[in-house]
Amino acid sequence: MKFLNTLLLIIMSTCAMSEKNDLTIVIHGGAGTILKENLTDETEAAIRKDLGRALDAGYAVLEKKGDATAAVIAAITILEDSPHFNAGKGAVYTRKAEHELDASLMRGNDLQAGAVAGVKHVKNPILAAQAVMLNSPHVMLSGAGADSFAKEQQLELVENDYFDTESRYESWQEVDAKQQKAGASADDVLAAEFKFGTVGAVAIDANGNIAAGTSTGGMTYKAYGRIGDSPVIGSGTYADNRSCGISATGHGEYFIRYAVAHNICSRVRWANASLTEAANAVIHDELLNAGGSGGVIGLDAAGKPIMIFNTKGMYRGYKTSAESDAYIGIYEK
Amino acid sequence: MKFLNTLLLIIMSTCAMSEKNDLTIVIHGGAGTILKENLTDETEAAIRKDLGRALDAGYAVLEKKGDATAAVIAAITILEDSPHFNAGKGAVYTRKAEHELDASLMRGNDLQAGAVAGVKHVKNPILAAQAVMLNSPHVMLSGAGADSFAKEQQLELVENDYFDTESRYESWQEVDAKQQKAGASADDVLAAEFKFGTVGAVAIDANGNIAAGTSTGGMTYKAYGRIGDSPVIGSGTYADNRSCGISATGHGEYFIRYAVAHNICSRVRWANASLTEAANAVIHDELLNAGGSGGVIGLDAAGKPIMIFNTKGMYRGYKTSAESDAYIGIYEK
Repeated sequence: MKFLNTLLLIIMSTCAMSEKNDLTIVIHGGAGTILKENLTDETEAAIRKDLGRALDAGYAVLEKKGDATAAVIAAITILEDSPHFNAGKGAVYTRKAEHELDASLMRGNDLQAGAVAGVKHVKNPILAAQAVMLNSPHVMLSGAGADSFAKEQQLELVENDYFDTESRYESWQEVDAKQQKAGASADDVLAAEFKFGTVGAVAIDANGNIAAGTSTGGMTYKAYGRIGDSPVIGSGTYADNRSCGISATGHGEYFIRYAVAHNICSRVRWANASLTEAANAVIHDELLNAGGSGGVIGLDAAGKPIMIFNTKGMYRGYKTSAESDAYIGIYEK
Repeated sequence: MKFLNTLLLIIMSTCAMSEKNDLTIVIHGGAGTILKENLTDETEAAIRKDLGRALDAGYAVLEKKGDATAAVIAAITILEDSPHFNAGKGAVYTRKAEHELDASLMRGNDLQAGAVAGVKHVKNPILAAQAVMLNSPHVMLSGAGADSFAKEQQLELVENDYFDTESRYESWQEVDAKQQKAGASADDVLAAEFKFGTVGAVAIDANGNIAAGTSTGGMTYKAYGRIGDSPVIGSGTYADNRSCGISATGHGEYFIRYAVAHNICSRVRWANASLTEAANAVIHDELLNAGGSGGVIGLDAAGKPIMIFNTKGMYRGYKTSAESDAYIGIYEK
């Protein structure tokens, strides 16, 4: 009898354990042709440091019983403020040599979401996405209207040149020179010179709530008010406690057409796939077959993180425990 | 032996028949509180006539071996040109008493897609969405950039007041008066005064290719460059030959958060649901539980059309045969 009681206790506590998720935060800083020979040791160290700071800040929120949305924002604002990533400070230049930024945020308990596209003056676009989610009846605001909403919300505004960095300007000059020389339509050059880079975070808190967010400066030399996948709920960002949270980075057009974030969560919910299987199928089969490159980070309802990409590298990392160090990776292997 | 051969032939031709889809086009002209007592007989007749013209034009394309995309465009341009629907001519007014239009188009054989958000001068926004799909490396263009792309593509441009209609202006005045009187934030008024209305079409051609498109004037009194679900691939529009094609209409914010069009197609593809079951689950369960109203039209790979909504009415119709009349409906029953 005592044996049976003990057995029952073990079974019950196992069940309880399996129901409780780990606190986890997983982040990315963009995917693309990231090769060791192209990064100086100094730059690599600086990038690793900023990824680590973002993970620590996000995890600290979770540890203090903060919610997943707050953790995602803590991590993303650090990546936006870092000049090393194509989001916030350090965003790429549009065809007109300006900066137009996009961001989105979603929480998985009630599927509330907010997004901004093409803002020029919000220092931290992820905070504008949060304000849209919390303080407007809308999900997606764009252009000057989104900037003016951010102003009403008393978010920190900056001049557009706040986002300037020398290295991004050099990239712009390179593309611009080629465009002038080739006499080709900007689009042709664009397609060839496509640069990736976006930041994102997904977290799960002590209540088992999942949140996901993404922020980007978009494509180098973009024109026509092009909107990529980052501000599109279902493509660049999705969170649903019943399945998973996802933030994507890559060739945005493909990510929109394949509704990548929602596609992965749907497979988890309906196709009886694990999050790893679902993300592999979308990133390595569907997207790669179509010619779309990039990657995703995410986590499932148990807090298990994934970081899956079909490019040479992805700035990435996760943290699942206060005691052990965070994992941080850059290259394929 | 002869009997067996005949049997085999019957079985084979049955299989071939079951593989061949019907030519079908299904359309909507918006969902909402559409009640018989609010429509004069004259207006109702005019609306039915335009829905019928759109169905006939789309079906004629399919009959002449045209592709599904061309059929969708033939139907939608007629609805855009009609003053009775909130798309193209007859679009609602923004807060600034202008018109900003959105449209999207997707084809299910290769998941190519195009969309425009917030255009002010393209006479038929669905043609701009098509041009983005066919002639740009992008999927989604917005604002002045989208208008200037349309100009480069030599699409027909109009002054913004081309879209004016007296009845939509009266609606704007009504909302504006309430907003002035209440002194409330525009958003509060917006939330209360929300008006639906969008047009869309889904078709399947003789090759079994599905296409879907959606076009809208958005929300009365919208501000902040608000983007609804209509130009969002995955929310307002989705087409995938492996599952279904969908065009949505309703309270756009909910349709984005629930990625309605992709959600329905995912359930067909992964949850072993029929299109009717999938659309019912999303429109009557998920959306209604969350407080989101609206509806969808669509069809599956066999060409079976659906028209499902959780509102009092939806302007809708489908045509599956050259011989028999099209079905056209407005009210709930």
